[in-house]
Amino acid sequence: MENPTDDYKIQSFDLDTQMLLKTALKVLFLSDPSSVNLVKVSNVIVDQSLKDQVFSKEAGRICYTIVQAEAKQNNGSVFRRNMLNRLQQEFKNREEMRGRSLQEWVCYVTFICNVFDYLKVNSLGVNNMPMVALVHPVYDCLIRLAKPDALMNEEEVRKNVDCLVLQLHRIGEQLEKVNSPRMDELFFLLRDGFLLQEGLSSMARLLLLEILEFRAGGWLLSGTAHKYYYSEIAD
Amino acid sequence: MENPTDDYKIQSFDLDTQMLLKTALKVLFLSDPSSVNLVKVSNVIVDQSLKDQVFSKEAGRICYTIVQAEAKQNNGSVFRRNMLNRLQQEFKNREEMRGRSLQEWVCYVTFICNVFDYLKVNSLGVNNMPMVALVHPVYDCLIRLAKPDALMNEEEVRKNVDCLVLQLHRIGEQLEKVNSPRMDELFFLLRDGFLLQEGLSSMARLLLLEILEFRAGGWLLSGTAHKYYYSEIAD
Repeated sequence: MENPTDDYKIQSFDLDTQMLLKTALKVLFLSDPSSVNLVKVSNVIVDQSLKDQVFSKEAGRICYTIVQAEAKQNNGSVFRRNMLNRLQQEFKNREEMRGRSLQEWVCYVTFICNVFDYLKVNSLGVNNMPMVALVHPVYDCLIRLAKPDALMNEEEVRKNVDCLVLQLHRIGEQLEKVNSPRMDELFFLLRDGFLLQEGLSSMARLLLLEILEFRAGGWLLSGTAHKYYYSEIAD
Repeated sequence: MENPTDDYKIQSFDLDTQMLLKTALKVLFLSDPSSVNLVKVSNVIVDQSLKDQVFSKEAGRICYTIVQAEAKQNNGSVFRRNMLNRLQQEFKNREEMRGRSLQEWVCYVTFICNVFDYLKVNSLGVNNMPMVALVHPVYDCLIRLAKPDALMNEEEVRKNVDCLVLQLHRIGEQLEKVNSPRMDELFFLLRDGFLLQEGLSSMARLLLLEILEFRAGGWLLSGTAHKYYYSEIAD
């Protein structure tokens, strides 16, 4: 059986947490969820996501694995519920978080987008629908990254634009399908940032321009645009 | 019968020239081409195009009308041949022209693009093919407008970018169909200009960004992009 934590730097946790995660997953797969504290597991995953950007990029897949296992047990959805509650709490405090730590904020956005990407619902007989409850929070986060005051100093621009562009490559198309007016709102901001913001570095401009062409092409980059953007970066 | 010169400010010519053009067209439609000096007519049209930007935007249609009438007479193609010769001569001297007068150069580019747009050939049973002989000169002109040294001072940028964007809206798609590598070359320059050129005004950026999205969308602007670009200009 595949161990879904192997890929995600489980070594980066402290030993207790490593044990907890390993036990959680083992127990879930051995069908005895009652013996592991799934509230604690979900908290560990959220906490680690907020600290570790590499982890936050893939944590959605761990969550997906646990949610699936939990659903098979028919034993409530402690993990899922707690994880979404934590996401919501942090969302409410996002401005405070932004003020406290840009790094944490960008990790949070990465995590919520990754959860949006992996956790789907089966609704009205349609499989793999995005979770409606996450659509507006995800948009709020992405739009926050693109607001003029988030594109002021170089360090912040780099972090915000990197994050934004990564998320749009991953989930932009899905997001637009469920709510296109908010995607329009986000792209109005991106174009404005691009056209009006004086201090953007060439790299930030390059990333933004690519994402504008990417969406204009129906979330696809033409061969020649790909060549331009990816060989320029290699230069 | 439609008089094809009515729309194009025939009043802006001096009286002699107005007479010449009117006679030319009348005679052509009355089927007696030998009585008018078509070399002179073609020279007048080229000369006026180089002086008058409004005229240069529509002169291709006048040329088209005369070429069609001339072809029906089966009496050689004096007008067409001389007009293309003049275009070629001016093309050879384009760097000198650019140095002498930016205005004249931009008029020339507008005119050759307009001729490319209107004058088609019927080849191998396929109607309405662009004239192959014009493809490279047209690309050379557009690429010249986008070179770094043409995007230096504000006045020049405005003239060059306005012209470039107008031509690409009109003939970009046709040009790409007949030679896509050169369109790629042009767009590499446009992206570079956009990303690297420090002194571009917001309006130049806006126009360039729109044309980049326009091509990325398959020479179509999405509804939301249209709203962005055209309501911004109205503001």
